[in-house]
Amino acid sequence: MHRAVYEGERRLSVIDVPDSPPGPGQVQVDVAYTGICGTDLHILHGVMDRRVGVPAVIGHEMSGTVARLGDGVDGWHPGDPVTVLPVLPCGACRTCAAGHGNVCPQLTFIGIDSAGSMQQRWNVPASALVRLPGTLDLAHGALAEPTAVAVHDVRRSGLAAGEHAVVVGGGPVGLLIAVVARRIGAHVLVLEPSPQRRAVADQLGFTAADPATADTNALVGDWTGGEGAAVSFEVSGAAAGVATGVRALAPRGRLVMVAIHAAPREVDLHRFFWRELTMLGARLYSRHDMATAVELVAAGHIPAAELITQVEPLNRVGEAFAALESGTGVMKVLLDCAAAR
Amino acid sequence: MHRAVYEGERRLSVIDVPDSPPGPGQVQVDVAYTGICGTDLHILHGVMDRRVGVPAVIGHEMSGTVARLGDGVDGWHPGDPVTVLPVLPCGACRTCAAGHGNVCPQLTFIGIDSAGSMQQRWNVPASALVRLPGTLDLAHGALAEPTAVAVHDVRRSGLAAGEHAVVVGGGPVGLLIAVVARRIGAHVLVLEPSPQRRAVADQLGFTAADPATADTNALVGDWTGGEGAAVSFEVSGAAAGVATGVRALAPRGRLVMVAIHAAPREVDLHRFFWRELTMLGARLYSRHDMATAVELVAAGHIPAAELITQVEPLNRVGEAFAALESGTGVMKVLLDCAAAR
Ligand SMILES: [Zn+2]
Ligand SMILES: [Zn+2]
Repeated sequence: MHRAVYEGERRLSVIDVPDSPPGPGQVQVDVAYTGICGTDLHILHGVMDRRVGVPAVIGHEMSGTVARLGDGVDGWHPGDPVTVLPVLPCGACRTCAAGHGNVCPQLTFIGIDSAGSMQQRWNVPASALVRLPGTLDLAHGALAEPTAVAVHDVRRSGLAAGEHAVVVGGGPVGLLIAVVARRIGAHVLVLEPSPQRRAVADQLGFTAADPATADTNALVGDWTGGEGAAVSFEVSGAAAGVATGVRALAPRGRLVMVAIHAAPREVDLHRFFWRELTMLGARLYSRHDMATAVELVAAGHIPAAELITQVEPLNRVGEAFAALESGTGVMKVLLDCAAAR
Repeated sequence: MHRAVYEGERRLSVIDVPDSPPGPGQVQVDVAYTGICGTDLHILHGVMDRRVGVPAVIGHEMSGTVARLGDGVDGWHPGDPVTVLPVLPCGACRTCAAGHGNVCPQLTFIGIDSAGSMQQRWNVPASALVRLPGTLDLAHGALAEPTAVAVHDVRRSGLAAGEHAVVVGGGPVGLLIAVVARRIGAHVLVLEPSPQRRAVADQLGFTAADPATADTNALVGDWTGGEGAAVSFEVSGAAAGVATGVRALAPRGRLVMVAIHAAPREVDLHRFFWRELTMLGARLYSRHDMATAVELVAAGHIPAAELITQVEPLNRVGEAFAALESGTGVMKVLLDCAAAR
């Protein structure tokens, strides 16, 4: 079977290896599709070598079917369509006990801390499997994981029907957040500098504006009848995105910190005090978020056609990563892992 | 009657004026004590002249007794001990409708936007009066307002019995927060650079450490069994206080932004993401917070003897402000407004 291997800074190769049988408690999955996300790109750039180890098999946004069961596994049958919940909390600490395993300090993540799905056959703990409906296009199934992120972010915000939400950053995660927010009945505005990404947002029926040229304060003011938004999602990772997200909020508004900001950012804390704003960090998702995501994807509420802009066979993994880096017109790139099976 | 008048940057005078009768819907209060707070000091420094106007009568931490009723007022009798809820929300906007009048964009504040209590007789809207128990020492009653701030801050944090809370800044507001947090069963650590203020914290039975010399990360780690604190209150107003407050938190920890930070501060947003931290701005209080504060003061749970470090007659208002500025050994300075009545 074929396997993509990350070999250190910007080096990827595809090798042919015999597949190993699933261990006790494991299930072997025939991987159908693996999406490439920002973290995978980050790993390719070499900045996470200490955590992932080199060489490494990465990938965690996936869909596939059950191939073989290891000892002691039941409840699954060959051919069952599945995705994987890659979050493995310790289960024993105070954070886990409080139900927040997604931020467990001892958490490990499949596809980063252990082998991922950029290969044709993948052994994973049976407990990590999540069933997909048999009717679901498996390419769409690979969107369950990024959708779970969006479901979690929106849930964390407490966004309610009729409220106004500003999404700062219209990449795949931002647009998934916008879609999930609209599904629960919120009014959504997307701020995104790239014209290609704004075009996708438009296509999906969202109002999208360029924060570089629009007066976002005036825009949000007009849009909310002068009150400000109830929620903003900072998905841009830019210093300016933080400032925009804060300024957009009405009194008691909530800013959800979705993006990774490697450097500390200046924040208008006086505004937090004066308007009693709330900032909420949001990371990963729970099993429940993943279940909601699978339902949304299965019901056709996630615009897979607009979000999946490219599908490449696994042996073109290098080209797939290059496409993702090439420009903001690319949204989600999937690896077709079955292509060469 | 005597009245202290703020006449512009660092100028205060005391004048003798005839008292004016209460207007319709107003009550005339014989002011007993007025505390001086950080905002009053801020006004004295001239930075809020546009808002307060000059000349102005300031002061809003007070106690007194009802003197006379204006037309249309009932439910009050001369001699009734009272304090005043100085927060006047518009009552009509979306923020007010949602029950968050304390951050109403049209809010006015008695003692800043209209005349305050640094005078012997004070006319206030009857609706702003809050009854004090007849048995309460009126000097202690003047602590109800700052206690309401602390009650609000702690309520906003969602702090629960058994949780660990770090109070960054051990001035009057910080120590009141510490007292309220301990009352609900939390474990409290106070971080304060001034040895005099740490001594007061010690006296009140709190563990207090100097953030300038202690390794606060290690300290909080040891204190919480390596987990981190559930809540931190940023009451210092210093950039370093923000960083300390953030670093102290366990996963899902809450940072309450109590202090006024005039300049934007660098915040470790990655930590917010990674640990799913929450930052909550907290401003003023509700009528319910004030009622809780009055109960706490009346029950003797607020350490008035330790917090009220000086009482000056109204005609020494300049000296009282000077004392507050003179050093961190001074906690709360009260003006005795009845002294020269
Ligand atoms: Zn854990
Ligand atoms: Zn209002």
